[in-house]
Amino acid sequence: MMTPEEYRESLKRMNFKAYALGEPVEEPTEHPLIIPSQNAVAATFEIGQTEDSCSALGSCASHISGQSISRFTHTHRNTQDLINKVKMQRELGQRTGTCFQRCVGMDALNALSSTTYELEAEMGGESNQRFMAFLEHVQQNDLVSDGAMTDPKGDRSKRPHQQPDPDVYLHVTEKRSDGIIVNGAKLHQTGALNSHEIIVMPTMSMKPEDEAFAVSFAIPADTKGITYILGRQASDTRKMEPGTMDRGNVIYGGQECLVVFQDVFVPWERVFMCGETRFAGILVERFAGYHRQSYGGCKVGVGDVLIGAVAALMDYHGLSKVSHLKDKLVEMIHLNETLYACGIACSAEGYETPSGTYEISQLLANVCKLNVTRFPYEIARLAQDIVGGLMVTMPSEFDLNHPEVGPMMQKYLACSSGINTVCRLRMMRLVENITIGAGAVGYLTESMHGAGPPQAMRIMIGRQADVEYKKSLAKRLAGIGSVVEETCACS
Amino acid sequence: MMTPEEYRESLKRMNFKAYALGEPVEEPTEHPLIIPSQNAVAATFEIGQTEDSCSALGSCASHISGQSISRFTHTHRNTQDLINKVKMQRELGQRTGTCFQRCVGMDALNALSSTTYELEAEMGGESNQRFMAFLEHVQQNDLVSDGAMTDPKGDRSKRPHQQPDPDVYLHVTEKRSDGIIVNGAKLHQTGALNSHEIIVMPTMSMKPEDEAFAVSFAIPADTKGITYILGRQASDTRKMEPGTMDRGNVIYGGQECLVVFQDVFVPWERVFMCGETRFAGILVERFAGYHRQSYGGCKVGVGDVLIGAVAALMDYHGLSKVSHLKDKLVEMIHLNETLYACGIACSAEGYETPSGTYEISQLLANVCKLNVTRFPYEIARLAQDIVGGLMVTMPSEFDLNHPEVGPMMQKYLACSSGINTVCRLRMMRLVENITIGAGAVGYLTESMHGAGPPQAMRIMIGRQADVEYKKSLAKRLAGIGSVVEETCACS
Amino acid sequence: MMTPEEYRESLKRMNFKAYALGEPVEEPTEHPLIIPSQNAVAATFEIGQTEDSCSALGSCASHISGQSISRFTHTHRNTQDLINKVKMQRELGQRTGTCFQRCVGMDALNALSSTTYELEAEMGGESNQRFMAFLEHVQQNDLVSDGAMTDPKGDRSKRPHQQPDPDVYLHVTEKRSDGIIVNGAKLHQTGALNSHEIIVMPTMSMKPEDEAFAVSFAIPADTKGITYILGRQASDTRKMEPGTMDRGNVIYGGQECLVVFQDVFVPWERVFMCGETRFAGILVERFAGYHRQSYGGCKVGVGDVLIGAVAALMDYHGLSKVSHLKDKLVEMIHLNETLYACGIACSAEGYETPSGTYEISQLLANVCKLNVTRFPYEIARLAQDIVGGLMVTMPSEFDLNHPEVGPMMQKYLACSSGINTVCRLRMMRLVENITIGAGAVGYLTESMHGAGPPQAMRIMIGRQADVEYKKSLAKRLAGIGSVVEETCACS
Amino acid sequence: MMTPEEYRESLKRMNFKAYALGEPVEEPTEHPLIIPSQNAVAATFEIGQTEDSCSALGSCASHISGQSISRFTHTHRNTQDLINKVKMQRELGQRTGTCFQRCVGMDALNALSSTTYELEAEMGGESNQRFMAFLEHVQQNDLVSDGAMTDPKGDRSKRPHQQPDPDVYLHVTEKRSDGIIVNGAKLHQTGALNSHEIIVMPTMSMKPEDEAFAVSFAIPADTKGITYILGRQASDTRKMEPGTMDRGNVIYGGQECLVVFQDVFVPWERVFMCGETRFAGILVERFAGYHRQSYGGCKVGVGDVLIGAVAALMDYHGLSKVSHLKDKLVEMIHLNETLYACGIACSAEGYETPSGTYEISQLLANVCKLNVTRFPYEIARLAQDIVGGLMVTMPSEFDLNHPEVGPMMQKYLACSSGINTVCRLRMMRLVENITIGAGAVGYLTESMHGAGPPQAMRIMIGRQADVEYKKSLAKRLAGIGSVVEETCACS
Repeated sequence: MMTPEEYRESLKRMNFKAYALGEPVEEPTEHPLIIPSQNAVAATFEIGQTEDSCSALGSCASHISGQSISRFTHTHRNTQDLINKVKMQRELGQRTGTCFQRCVGMDALNALSSTTYELEAEMGGESNQRFMAFLEHVQQNDLVSDGAMTDPKGDRSKRPHQQPDPDVYLHVTEKRSDGIIVNGAKLHQTGALNSHEIIVMPTMSMKPEDEAFAVSFAIPADTKGITYILGRQASDTRKMEPGTMDRGNVIYGGQECLVVFQDVFVPWERVFMCGETRFAGILVERFAGYHRQSYGGCKVGVGDVLIGAVAALMDYHGLSKVSHLKDKLVEMIHLNETLYACGIACSAEGYETPSGTYEISQLLANVCKLNVTRFPYEIARLAQDIVGGLMVTMPSEFDLNHPEVGPMMQKYLACSSGINTVCRLRMMRLVENITIGAGAVGYLTESMHGAGPPQAMRIMIGRQADVEYKKSLAKRLAGIGSVVEETCACS
Repeated sequence: MMTPEEYRESLKRMNFKAYALGEPVEEPTEHPLIIPSQNAVAATFEIGQTEDSCSALGSCASHISGQSISRFTHTHRNTQDLINKVKMQRELGQRTGTCFQRCVGMDALNALSSTTYELEAEMGGESNQRFMAFLEHVQQNDLVSDGAMTDPKGDRSKRPHQQPDPDVYLHVTEKRSDGIIVNGAKLHQTGALNSHEIIVMPTMSMKPEDEAFAVSFAIPADTKGITYILGRQASDTRKMEPGTMDRGNVIYGGQECLVVFQDVFVPWERVFMCGETRFAGILVERFAGYHRQSYGGCKVGVGDVLIGAVAALMDYHGLSKVSHLKDKLVEMIHLNETLYACGIACSAEGYETPSGTYEISQLLANVCKLNVTRFPYEIARLAQDIVGGLMVTMPSEFDLNHPEVGPMMQKYLACSSGINTVCRLRMMRLVENITIGAGAVGYLTESMHGAGPPQAMRIMIGRQADVEYKKSLAKRLAGIGSVVEETCACS
Repeated sequence: MMTPEEYRESLKRMNFKAYALGEPVEEPTEHPLIIPSQNAVAATFEIGQTEDSCSALGSCASHISGQSISRFTHTHRNTQDLINKVKMQRELGQRTGTCFQRCVGMDALNALSSTTYELEAEMGGESNQRFMAFLEHVQQNDLVSDGAMTDPKGDRSKRPHQQPDPDVYLHVTEKRSDGIIVNGAKLHQTGALNSHEIIVMPTMSMKPEDEAFAVSFAIPADTKGITYILGRQASDTRKMEPGTMDRGNVIYGGQECLVVFQDVFVPWERVFMCGETRFAGILVERFAGYHRQSYGGCKVGVGDVLIGAVAALMDYHGLSKVSHLKDKLVEMIHLNETLYACGIACSAEGYETPSGTYEISQLLANVCKLNVTRFPYEIARLAQDIVGGLMVTMPSEFDLNHPEVGPMMQKYLACSSGINTVCRLRMMRLVENITIGAGAVGYLTESMHGAGPPQAMRIMIGRQADVEYKKSLAKRLAGIGSVVEETCACS
Repeated sequence: MMTPEEYRESLKRMNFKAYALGEPVEEPTEHPLIIPSQNAVAATFEIGQTEDSCSALGSCASHISGQSISRFTHTHRNTQDLINKVKMQRELGQRTGTCFQRCVGMDALNALSSTTYELEAEMGGESNQRFMAFLEHVQQNDLVSDGAMTDPKGDRSKRPHQQPDPDVYLHVTEKRSDGIIVNGAKLHQTGALNSHEIIVMPTMSMKPEDEAFAVSFAIPADTKGITYILGRQASDTRKMEPGTMDRGNVIYGGQECLVVFQDVFVPWERVFMCGETRFAGILVERFAGYHRQSYGGCKVGVGDVLIGAVAALMDYHGLSKVSHLKDKLVEMIHLNETLYACGIACSAEGYETPSGTYEISQLLANVCKLNVTRFPYEIARLAQDIVGGLMVTMPSEFDLNHPEVGPMMQKYLACSSGINTVCRLRMMRLVENITIGAGAVGYLTESMHGAGPPQAMRIMIGRQADVEYKKSLAKRLAGIGSVVEETCACS
C-alpha cells in the first residue's frame, strides 16, 4: 500500500492533458484548485496504514494474494466487508468533510468482478480473466481508479444508435487486432484528475442494436486522447486566494471533470465488455447499487462534521443549553443516523453472487440513496437555522487582516465567552462551505444526483418491493378469497 | 412448543378477573372483543412450527437446554439473532396486520437477562439465578409474558416517594419471609389478558429514596389481586356485530388493558429486583431499547399489509398504471423500508453484554423508533389519498345485505373491472381499520407512544451521539487549533 | 331566517326514504346516528341570529330582496363577502368541532349563479331566470341545500356515454313536456338527509356526446324516487350507546350518504342545465373552487378545537410549560393558521364575474385545499404526540361508571392537579374523536378528498400558474435573448 | 420620483467610507462587487415610473402632500395598500431574482410612523413631529433608507447595560444641546451602501435600565464616523471576472454590510426615540411584523424566477412532459404560492393604528415568515432535483470560450432540441446562483434569518393565538362544564 506521499509522487509522474478556468493545467498536483481534492484522495491512503486508528477499516486481506491491501481495491467477500466499507466511508467523510472521490473506482471494481464472471460463464471469452488481471494490478500497486459511467446522452428520446451524433454515448469506433478505438465523453467525473486508471462502463442498459455502446474497459488515466476539463464549483476561486479562512474547509475539497475521449486506444487485455449488450444493464445496476450504498457512509461522515461545526458554534455563542437549539441539533443527528442505518442495513442484508463477490440489498440501497436526496438538505437547513445569518454577511478574511477594519470585526463579531473571534468566523465559514459553498456541491447536489437522480431510485424501489405478495397479505386479512371470491360471478 | 390450539386451551385454564365495557368477563377466550387479539397472539405459535415456511425465524435453539424453542422466549446470542427477531416481527405483522402483543414479554426477558446478571455480579444475591429459573420455565412451557412497565406516575413534578398516593407507582408495600406484597397499577398493557405471566419492571430510573419502587418480578397473570380492565379502541364494537366486513381485519386485532394490583403476593423466587435502585434505570433503558428495535419489524409488517391493500384497490379501480398513484405507492414503500433498515441496522450493530445476551445499538434503535413516530402517519395519509373517500362514506355491511339497498350498493359501488364489489368494499374497510379504526390504535398511536414517546428517543439520541468528537472533526477542518488558537489570548 | 328549532321542525315535516345500518329510518330527526349531524347543521341557524355574537358573519343583506338572510343562502357580492364566508366557516368549525354540512349548498348556489348567467347569455333559454327564482325561494325560506356532484363514475377509462351501465353517471333518461326524468346516484353526500333541497350538478366537464349527462337541477330532498343510505363512520355506534363520554364530541357529528335517484321527476322550472355540455366543466370548476376555499375556514375551526383540547390536556397533566410540548403546540397553530391564510388570501384576491357574483382566486383556492390535504394529518399526529397513549388504551365510560372498576380508573387515571379525572378522560375522547374516530372522517379523510383529491388541485395549480411568464423572467436574468440567442444558429 | 439614472447619480454624490475584500472602496457605484446590488435597488425606481406596466403598484399618493410618490416611501393607509406592497415586492423579486434591499427602509418608516405617534401622544415631546418631517423629506426626494436594527449583542446572557463592552449595543454616549453622539454597530445591513439615509432602531425591547440603548434616529448614510465593511457572499468574486455567464444572474445581486458607528453625531431634529424604553419593544415588533410580511412578496418573486428557470431547462432538455418532473414543478409552485397567500392574508387582515398607518395581522405575518424559513429550501431542493447535476460539474465560461475545449463543451453539453448550448449552461448557472451561489444568500439564508430567526416567529405565534379561547371551545364539546365539572369536588 502507498503512503499519502507516495500517492502524490505517483501522480506527479503522470502526464494529464487538463484544463481549468480556460487555461491548460501544466501540473495538476500543484494547481491550487486541484490540491484540496488531492488532499482528500490522499486521506484514503492514511486510513489503511497500520499506524492509523482505523486501519482495520481501511485495509483488508486480498482474496487473490492474501496480502494486506486497501479496502478501496478489495472485492467484498462477506456482509462484514460490506459493513466495513460503509464505516470506512463514514470515517473518511469525517476526516475530510468532503467527497474523497475514490469510491467510484471501488464500486466499479466490485460491480465488474461479478458481472464479468457471469458474462464469461455465459458467453465465453476472457472477460473475467482480463478483469481479474486488472484487479490484481490495482491491488498490488494500490491504484486509484475513476469509475466512469455517465454519458452526455444527447437527445433523450432516442436510443444510442439512433443519435445524430453517436459520440454522445461513448462507443467503439474501430476494432483492431490489438485493441479497440473509442470516442465519446463522460460527465460528472468525480476525482478523475486524481486517478491512475479510468474504468469506463456503459451508462445504462443496452439493446442489441446498441452493440457498439456496450463497452467497458480500464486504461491509465493519462492515456493519449483523453482531455480533462475541470468543473467549476461555488466559491471555488477562494482556493486560489491567499489566506485559508474563507475556504471554510482549509484542507480538503472535491473535484468534478468533464472527460473527453478522442480516438483513444484500448488494448484487448483491458477490455471487459465489448458488445455483450445483455450485461450492460446488469453492470449499471450493480455499480449504481454499490454507489447508493456508499452514500450511506460518506455523506454521513460529512454530516458529522456539519453537526460538529454547529455544536461548536452553539458553544461559542453560549447557547449550548437552549432547548430549541438542542432539539434542532438532535434532529440533525437523527436524520444523519437514519442515513447511516440505511447504509448498514443494505450491507447486512447483502448476499453472495456466483463470483464470490457480495452484493448489497438493492432494495435497501435504493432506499438509502433516496433518503440521501432529502435529508442532507434538511440537515443543512437546520444548520443555517442554528448558526445564524452572520455566516453570509460577515466580511472577508482580507478585512479581518486589515489594520483599520480588522479590529472592528474583532470587536463587533466577538463571542461572549473568551473564544477567539477568528474561531467563530472560521467555523461559520466551514458551515458556509458545506451548505452554500464549494462543499455544498458534494454534500447537497451530489447527494441528489450522484449514483443517479431520485427517480432512478423510485423505479428500483417499485421494482424490488414484492407488491404482489403484499396484496395477498391484505386479501387474506380482508376476507377476500376465503369469505368472498374476488371475481364477480356475473362478470 | 405449543400449537396455536394448545395455546388457546392453556388460556382457558386460567382464571382472570377481567372487565370489558363495564361488565365482568367470564371467559376471555370467548369474548368477541378479545378473540381477535388472541388470534393475533396465536399466530406467534404458528411461526415457530416446523411446517411453517418461516419456522427458522420463529424458533431457535435454547442456549440453556439446547432444545428448539420459540424465539419469543429466547435471549439473543448474536447479531444474527437480533436480525432474525426483527424479521420474525415483520413476518408476523404481515400475517396479522395488527399488534401481536408477545414482543413486550420477549423484550422484558432479554433486558432482565443482562440486567440481573450485572446486578447479581455487583451486589450479590440471587437475582440472576431466579431470573434464569424463570426463563427456563418460560422456555420449557412456551409461555406468553406481559412485560409491564408503565406506571400512572401521578404528579409528574414529584418523585415516586413524594407522591401523595404512592400507588401511582407500583411498589412493595410489605416484605415477608416468603415474598413481597405489591400495590399499584400498570397502564397500556398490551395483550395482558392473553398472557400466562406478567413481568413487572420499574417505569423509570430510581433514586435511593425510591427504594420501594425499584421492584421487578414475574407472576402468573391470573394471580389473586390482579384486575384487568379492557381499554376501548376506535370502532371496537364492530367486533361484536354480526358479519365481518365492517371489522376491516376479519381475523385479528389488538388489546390494551389497565392492570391493577391490589395486595398481590410475589414469592421471593420470582423477585428479580427489590430495592436495587441503581439498576432500575439500566433495566428500563434496555427494555426500551429492545422494544424500539421491535417497532422496526412489527410496524413494517403492518405497513406491508397497508401497502398491499392500497395496491389491490388500485387494481380494482383500474388505476394501477396511473403515474401519480404509482409514485405515492413507491413513497409508502420507501418510508416503510426506511423503518425496516433502522430495525436491521440497530441489530447488525449489536454487541455482547457480560451475560452473553446481545444488546442492540441504542443510538440506532432510538433513531428507528423516532422514525416510527412519523412515517406510519405519512404512510396512512398516502393510503387515504390513493384509495379515495368512499372508505369513510360507504354504508355498512348490514346495508349491503339488505334486499332493497344492497343491490343499489352493488350497482353504484361496483368496480370497473369484473371484480366483486364486495371485495372492493372489504379492502376499503381494511384500509379504514388500519388508518382510522381499531387497527390505527396499533399502527398509529402505539407507533407514537409505545416504548416511550418521541421526546424519550430525542433525549437518548442526543446522549448517544458523540457530539464532542464531531466538534473536534469540525475544528480540524476549520483550521482551529492548528491555524488559530480557540481561546483568546486576551481573555 | 329560521331558528335552530324551526329548522328541526321543518325537517320533521319532510318525508325521506332512508336507511341506516341496514334498517329503514322512520324519522331521521329522532335517529341517534343522525341527531348529532342535525345538531351541527342547526348551529348554522344560530350564527345568523341577531343575538349571536357573530351574527354579522352569519347573516347579510340579500342583493335580491335587500332583506337580512343567512350567508349560507347568499351569493357573494364582493371580496369582503368572500372573506366573511371563510370567517363564518371557521367560527362554525370552532363551535361544532365537525363538518356542519351546509357549505356544499352555499357553494353550489354561488357556482350556479354565475354559470347559469353566462350560459343564458350565450345560449339563450331560461337557465339563469329559473336559478334566480330558486335562489329567492331558498333565501326567503332559509333552506338547507345539498350540493350533489360526485357520480360513481364506473369504468374510469370510459366517458359517460360509453359506460355499459349509464346510470353510473346521473343523467336524463326522458324529457317530457313538464320536466325531465333522471336516474343515477351521487356518492359522498355530506349532510344530504339534513337538507331541504338537493342541487344536482354534473361531476366533471362533458363533451358533446355526453349531452344527457350535462344536467343540473334542484328538487326537494324528499322527492319521490330518492333513496338515502347512511354511510358508516369510525366508532359511529358510540352515538347509539348510553352515556356521552365515549363519543368524544358530545353534541355534534357529521353525515355522509349514498343517494340513489330512480326515475326522479324534475319540473322544467327547476332545471338549470340540460345538455349544454360546454358549461358543465365551468360549473364543476367554480363549485370546486368555492369548496376548496371553504376548507380554509371550516377545517381551521376544527383545528382550533383540537388545539384547544391538546392545550387543556397539557394543563390537566401539569405540562403547560414543557418546552418541547409548547413547541409542538405552536407548530399545530402555525399549520392551522397557514390554512387560514390560504382561505383568506384566495378570498381577498377574488374578482367579479359578469353575473355580479364574486369568484375566488382559483390558483390560491387550489393551493389552500392542497395544504388541507396535508396539514390536518400532521396536526393530528402532533396532537397524539402531546396527549399521550392513554387516549387509545383507556377503558370505556361503562367501566368508569362501574362500582368496582370505576374507582380504580378514578385512582389510577387521575391528573396531578385537582382536576376531575373525568375531564381528563373526556378531553382525551375528544382528541380520539377528531384524530382516530368519527370526527376524523371529517377532519382527515374529508380534508383529503372533499372538493376533489390532491391530484385535482395539482392539475389546477399547474394550469393556473403562468409558467411561460416565469420562464421569460428567468431568461432575462440569465442573459438569454440579450446576451445570447436561445436557438442555435446551427440548428 | 427619481429615475434609475438619477438614483445612480445621487449615490455618486455621496461620500461613503467603505471597505470590500480588505481594500478601501473609492467609488462604490463603480465597484464590480457592488454594481449588481445597486442595479437591484435601481429597479425599485423603475416600477413607480408611469411608463412601467406596474406603476400602480410602485407608486401611490402621499397622504401628506397628495403627490405621487414611490410606495417605498409611503405609509400604508388601508389594507389595499398592504396588499399592494406585497404585490410590488413580488413583482420586484421577479424582475431582479434577488434581494432589492429597499424594503427595510419602507418597513422602518411604517413602524416609526405609528410608534412615534403613540410615543408622543403618551409621553409628549416631538417624536412624531420630527419623524413626519423626516418622512416628508424622504418622500419629496424619493430617498432610499437603510433600516438598521440588529446589534452584535455580545454576551447573550446579559442585558445591554450589563455588557462589559456597551458598544455591542448601539447607544447614546453623549447628549449635547444640538444632538446626541452614538457608538456601536449594526450587523447584516442589507443594501446599506446603496442608501441615502440610515434609520437606526433598537434591536429588541428594553428595560428602564437600558435607557441609553433605547435610541432611534435617521441620518444621511455618509455621515462622518460611519464605516461600511462589505460582507462576502458565496461565489461573489465571479462578479469581478470578465464574462457574465458564471454569475448566473447577469444583472442583479444583493448586498450586506457590517456598519460601524464611531462617535457619530445626530442632530435632535432627527432623533425619534431617546430613552423611552417602553416603546423600544413596540417599534421592534412592528418593524419585524412588516418585514415578515415583506417576505411573503419578495421571496415569492425570486421563487417565480427559479420556477421559470427550472421550467425552461425542462424545455431545453426535452422533458417538459415527464410526469414526475411536472409534479415536482407543481410542488415548487404550490409552496411558492402558499408563501404568497400568507403575505396577502396578513395584509388583508390588517388594521388601523391611531396614527392612521395600517398594521398587518401580527399572527399571520409571523406564520408567513415561519413558512419562509422552510419552503424556499425545499423549492431549491426540488429545483436541483429537476435540473440535474451538471449545474455543479460544468466547466467555466472561460473554458467555453477556449478554442480547444470550448467546442468539446458545445458538443457534449448540447441540448437535444436545437437550443443553443450556451443557453442551457446560462440557465444552469442561474439555478446555481439562487440555490448554491450568491443568490442563495438572499433566497435561503436570509429567508431563514432576515426579520428574525424561526424561534422569534414561534414565540410570537404562541403569543398571538388565543389558546385560552380554543380551550373553552374544546371543553364545551367534550361536555366539560355542562356535563361534568372541571375541578374535583374532592380536591
